[in-house]
Amino acid sequence: MSDKIVATYVLARPAAEAARAARQVAVEQTVEVPESLITPDIERRVVGKVLEVVPGGGPELFKARIAYEPELSGWELPRLLNLVYGNVSLQQGIRLVDLELPPAFLARFKGPNYGLAGLRKLVDVHDRPLLATALKPSGAPISEFETLAYDFVRGGGDVLKDDQNLCDADLKAFAERVKRVQAAVDKGNAKAKTKAVYCPILCGPADELEARVDAVLKAGAKGVLAPPMLLGLDTVRSLAAKKKLVVLAHPSFTGTFFSDRSHGVTPALLLGTLFRLAGCDASIFPSPGGRFGFTKEECRDVSRALHGPLGRLAPAFPAPAGGMTYTSLPGLAAVYGVDSMFLVGGGLLSHDRSVYEATKAFIEAIGGLFPSRSGRVCPP
Amino acid sequence: MSDKIVATYVLARPAAEAARAARQVAVEQTVEVPESLITPDIERRVVGKVLEVVPGGGPELFKARIAYEPELSGWELPRLLNLVYGNVSLQQGIRLVDLELPPAFLARFKGPNYGLAGLRKLVDVHDRPLLATALKPSGAPISEFETLAYDFVRGGGDVLKDDQNLCDADLKAFAERVKRVQAAVDKGNAKAKTKAVYCPILCGPADELEARVDAVLKAGAKGVLAPPMLLGLDTVRSLAAKKKLVVLAHPSFTGTFFSDRSHGVTPALLLGTLFRLAGCDASIFPSPGGRFGFTKEECRDVSRALHGPLGRLAPAFPAPAGGMTYTSLPGLAAVYGVDSMFLVGGGLLSHDRSVYEATKAFIEAIGGLFPSRSGRVCPP
Repeated sequence: MSDKIVATYVLARPAAEAARAARQVAVEQTVEVPESLITPDIERRVVGKVLEVVPGGGPELFKARIAYEPELSGWELPRLLNLVYGNVSLQQGIRLVDLELPPAFLARFKGPNYGLAGLRKLVDVHDRPLLATALKPSGAPISEFETLAYDFVRGGGDVLKDDQNLCDADLKAFAERVKRVQAAVDKGNAKAKTKAVYCPILCGPADELEARVDAVLKAGAKGVLAPPMLLGLDTVRSLAAKKKLVVLAHPSFTGTFFSDRSHGVTPALLLGTLFRLAGCDASIFPSPGGRFGFTKEECRDVSRALHGPLGRLAPAFPAPAGGMTYTSLPGLAAVYGVDSMFLVGGGLLSHDRSVYEATKAFIEAIGGLFPSRSGRVCPP
Repeated sequence: MSDKIVATYVLARPAAEAARAARQVAVEQTVEVPESLITPDIERRVVGKVLEVVPGGGPELFKARIAYEPELSGWELPRLLNLVYGNVSLQQGIRLVDLELPPAFLARFKGPNYGLAGLRKLVDVHDRPLLATALKPSGAPISEFETLAYDFVRGGGDVLKDDQNLCDADLKAFAERVKRVQAAVDKGNAKAKTKAVYCPILCGPADELEARVDAVLKAGAKGVLAPPMLLGLDTVRSLAAKKKLVVLAHPSFTGTFFSDRSHGVTPALLLGTLFRLAGCDASIFPSPGGRFGFTKEECRDVSRALHGPLGRLAPAFPAPAGGMTYTSLPGLAAVYGVDSMFLVGGGLLSHDRSVYEATKAFIEAIGGLFPSRSGRVCPP
């Protein structure tokens, strides 16, 4: 394995320009000076090395692999983003599609606090995908959230999160709401003899995030829903490293990286590899077929990036979401496998049965998806 | 003026679907539930209100204005981003093109510490655009940066910044380099009787940013170069609010917001309005004609967003950059006017004269661009 950071880009360029374009990326991302100012010493020590430029799977598409000295990343996330996609994000037709990170880089990262195995242990569910839902809509009274939380947990649901749009008046109101919802979750767990966890939204002014995390832990909640692109990717990493939290990553404000398939960063890299580096135990993303535009292949790749080897970092849950229904479960199971978390929001709330009944039905259906895994009967 | 947050989107939709698409945005961004679950009370208090949907300047383009309750922004930046573009960033053909922020929202923000007038006072230049350059290339010895800094300042340059790619081994190495470069700037200022400022790069782990700012201030430097999309927009705001710094914003990692003109956020909104809200005194962006893809109109709009009214927030400098040369100065002056900062990197370093001579020549040329402003002769 290389000791360099190797980034693979797809360049939308005519064949005659592909090699030159790859060199321009290597220069732009490291020294950003005209070629005439690059001394042999700087060339050798600092400028990115174009390893290869090969046809990239379409007309006028080329794949360029570029090796960067890991020192240029400062061994941390903000500079890594700058190094592999900072300035070239402002140019046209350059898409970052793969990132090979050397062991020395990965060793600096703690990764998910719980990861797949830890979160399974926490919720005590070992043989099927987890079922998650969201408290919504924003603006509803806390008593409705308490009822929803209790019914979902008592129905056998595993992970309850806030909707990312929930917005409390201030830190005090947030702490109060989290306390009440966590109490409802506790009550549901006692009733169903389960260990469901609750992850309130972590969003707010930079200076207040740690206080919010403390309020969450003080209320007995085990994790948070964190949107890395709203808070800063390294802000999330730092909080996850300091506090023993389950971190569910929310993809709010990430969509511009994916919408133009000739530009940006793949969902697998951003929502998979990078969010996992930041310590996310699960990463939520829009599953195909709903109202968002991801393809099945992109979703599968996110899943692989969360599950696959990444130094000694724990694997994390892919959490497909968005317009999911009871009938889409077998398809989801086929794509994501058993080590996934199905986030069902509106589909659970607008089910023709009560939330309790609907959750039970979902859990039963999910339990039946992987019968070979064990003979264990799913929760009451 | 409305007391709501009013966002304007361009929707790439057929005429028959435009009104429904606007409603979907309003629902997605606030409650994210199926229509059937929206009670009259939630509709009234929480769901975004579609104010109008009108033809949007192209075939199958519609402009939709949507009013949001400002409470849903939490009166802060991370939630504002979530509210106006969080989830819909993951859908296709929805571009955020304007944002009207009510006085009560703007009143929560301190804005630029210095702004146009304050930074002019600091560098004591009142009658022409400022000239800025970058220390580069990454990997060069500090002694070269000292020479470059001294020559640029002695030649009359106003703002010296690190290249965003500069990467010191650690905080100690950073502090040492900043101290040495600032000493060279001081020496240049003493020689030229000027007041040039130096802004080192602020990039690194979230937990270390404040220590880096302290090292900058301790060295006598007046500001930083901060990349908001690498650090988190509100992280930058928080640091600017706590410490009296000049903040130059760097656009690293912002390009995906702009590349697809049917999607994303306009440069004026992100690099102008939002960066100014975060307290940036100047915002760097790629000027047209260089190696980046902004149009002249987009650049002019960034400039207007930085200069125009925004509550009581100080206006800030547009800092066009990227492939700028001596001959492009009159064109830049025509686009950005006198209250701008021209960031010349490679163009200054690869000029056929020395950096000192080249800086002098640029300053003289810049001084001649606005002769009517005053009779003041430009620096020696």
